[in-house]
Amino acid sequence: MNVYLQRIKACKKRLHEKHLNGCLVLPGPNFQYFTSYTVESFERFMGLFIPLDGEPSLLLPELEADRGRRLSAIQRITSYKDAENIQQVLSSVLSRLNLQSGILGVEGQTPFSTIQLLTKTSAKIQLENVDPILQQLRLTKSEQELEKLRQSSQILEEAISYVLNTSKTGMTEKEVARVVTHRIEDQKGDVPFCLIQSGRNSAIPHHSYGERRIQRNDVLLLDIGCKYEGYVTDISRTVVIGTPSEKMKEVHKIVVEAQKRAIEAVKPDVKAEEIDRKARGYIEEKGYGEQFIHRTGHGLGLEVHEAPFILKGNSQTLEPGMVFTVEPGIYLSGEFGVRVEDNIVVTDEGYENLTSLDKELREV
Amino acid sequence: MNVYLQRIKACKKRLHEKHLNGCLVLPGPNFQYFTSYTVESFERFMGLFIPLDGEPSLLLPELEADRGRRLSAIQRITSYKDAENIQQVLSSVLSRLNLQSGILGVEGQTPFSTIQLLTKTSAKIQLENVDPILQQLRLTKSEQELEKLRQSSQILEEAISYVLNTSKTGMTEKEVARVVTHRIEDQKGDVPFCLIQSGRNSAIPHHSYGERRIQRNDVLLLDIGCKYEGYVTDISRTVVIGTPSEKMKEVHKIVVEAQKRAIEAVKPDVKAEEIDRKARGYIEEKGYGEQFIHRTGHGLGLEVHEAPFILKGNSQTLEPGMVFTVEPGIYLSGEFGVRVEDNIVVTDEGYENLTSLDKELREV
Repeated sequence: MNVYLQRIKACKKRLHEKHLNGCLVLPGPNFQYFTSYTVESFERFMGLFIPLDGEPSLLLPELEADRGRRLSAIQRITSYKDAENIQQVLSSVLSRLNLQSGILGVEGQTPFSTIQLLTKTSAKIQLENVDPILQQLRLTKSEQELEKLRQSSQILEEAISYVLNTSKTGMTEKEVARVVTHRIEDQKGDVPFCLIQSGRNSAIPHHSYGERRIQRNDVLLLDIGCKYEGYVTDISRTVVIGTPSEKMKEVHKIVVEAQKRAIEAVKPDVKAEEIDRKARGYIEEKGYGEQFIHRTGHGLGLEVHEAPFILKGNSQTLEPGMVFTVEPGIYLSGEFGVRVEDNIVVTDEGYENLTSLDKELREV
Repeated sequence: MNVYLQRIKACKKRLHEKHLNGCLVLPGPNFQYFTSYTVESFERFMGLFIPLDGEPSLLLPELEADRGRRLSAIQRITSYKDAENIQQVLSSVLSRLNLQSGILGVEGQTPFSTIQLLTKTSAKIQLENVDPILQQLRLTKSEQELEKLRQSSQILEEAISYVLNTSKTGMTEKEVARVVTHRIEDQKGDVPFCLIQSGRNSAIPHHSYGERRIQRNDVLLLDIGCKYEGYVTDISRTVVIGTPSEKMKEVHKIVVEAQKRAIEAVKPDVKAEEIDRKARGYIEEKGYGEQFIHRTGHGLGLEVHEAPFILKGNSQTLEPGMVFTVEPGIYLSGEFGVRVEDNIVVTDEGYENLTSLDKELREV
């Protein structure tokens, strides 16, 4: 049995345990998890139905059917034309799969319009959020998935190293972004996001990149994602283009130490919130607690942000095969920001750091 | 009153007419329409509340608050920390804005998880799809919006011209995509999508681009979007890298003529489906009806695909200020595909074609 059919089987088992009749998975990471491919979802309806009894079935607009047949691990495909009534199409699929009544699991991301379409198509359908089941399936990675993450990380680290060695005063943030993006794409990676933040922009955590030119003695903060065969890694490094000030050195040292303490606490049975506590506690102790304005990390896999989330209040215990970022940061509004981010796998004994890139405050 | 406050006012008027108590707008094009800026929505809750009575209010995670304050046309911002209980935060915003009961409009794209959060926060809230109201507001463009679309089109046409003149045998689809993407970005445009399809790939309508190298006598189909100050244009052209076969010439000629007939039918009070009929009727007459497997067009504005949709069954009548694509295509599986796409504005007298790029089957 191939890996995709195994995943479908594991999903059905959990659906059964939770008394669901089946589930609907829309284009996106869960769709990729089960079908092995992705599809851009515009406004046309498309999705994968996994019924408790019977074969999983893809419903695609005709425009996507050919690609679906070539790329999908799911063999059963129903396609429809733009001019067809989608409610009729959907109704016939639901009844063929015995999904027209009972509880259907839908993802948390399912749009309100799809919810309305489903309930209008079949008034007897009850909907329940299936995310806990799908998250659980995807939460611990197989060795095959970890291998993809390692390759993803290798591509990303090489690209970041390269760009750190070639960035200089006078380049715009956008130019730096292009260099790193091409470097990743040339190694068959995609770039789901790319933050290149120079000078004061580094103090704005979600600033992307712009026309600002790097100036002498600027902080340069890079936070870049790399998707390789569907799997995402996510690394941040902060350097100085020129000579760092004493304050930059101090803040950078605190962030690196906070990150080190958090990473070294990773092992099975520790709670996610304890990892956050390790980083946050140290930063608070050093007087910058108010300037660490986000959680310590998030899980990685087919999504940039997935479980487990490393923040206060998450009492989930870590298990071997979980993968997440550890990325404390300190942001001094109007001055500069520092963030350092590695990707960590929980192992039987403790942890594996997927990221080997050094984290010195290089003077580039 | 600035344009954003005028839009809020017009929205409130329609909410009132439809007996809605207010609406919630999530990050995306409607959000941009009202606030003048966009925000990447990851898994944290953020949105704009427009209450029937009182001031509109943005709810943002702390991480986004600074950027919101700088860029948003909406002055009232509530921010929350990652560790706060989002249900409590939301509850206090809803009660401050008198939205904790009555009918709240939500967009069709609103995720099921947000729907669940809203109904869990306030059991007395009823939800209704507010898309018809928001679509109606955005359906006809102001002169200011048309000007942005004209600029967007200019950037896009220049980039396509450039790439048609520089593409040659041996380049990969990805390399062509980079050339055109940089050309657009250097003119302050963004590229929401970029399809570069060579040879047999041109027969797969939604193929993006890949490592395939252009070969001599290949069809090359480009379908590229350009977003400029939020407004999207979308142009397709099909050329041959080398010498076109007789069949390529024949199919291209049919598509161009079908497009011409459809465009020339555009004027106020004509139904959207009649424009589709003009293109489709001609292609059917020529024997390729089965190979024209998508609708004739879609509206343009803050979204790549918005109302009005140009397809069978859409009896919406055209009005001055509407903007949409006219893009018939013929796809011969395993051989090649042809699509030609212009962007059309409905005027008082007839139409304005935003696209002036010639549509000869150039031999590049």
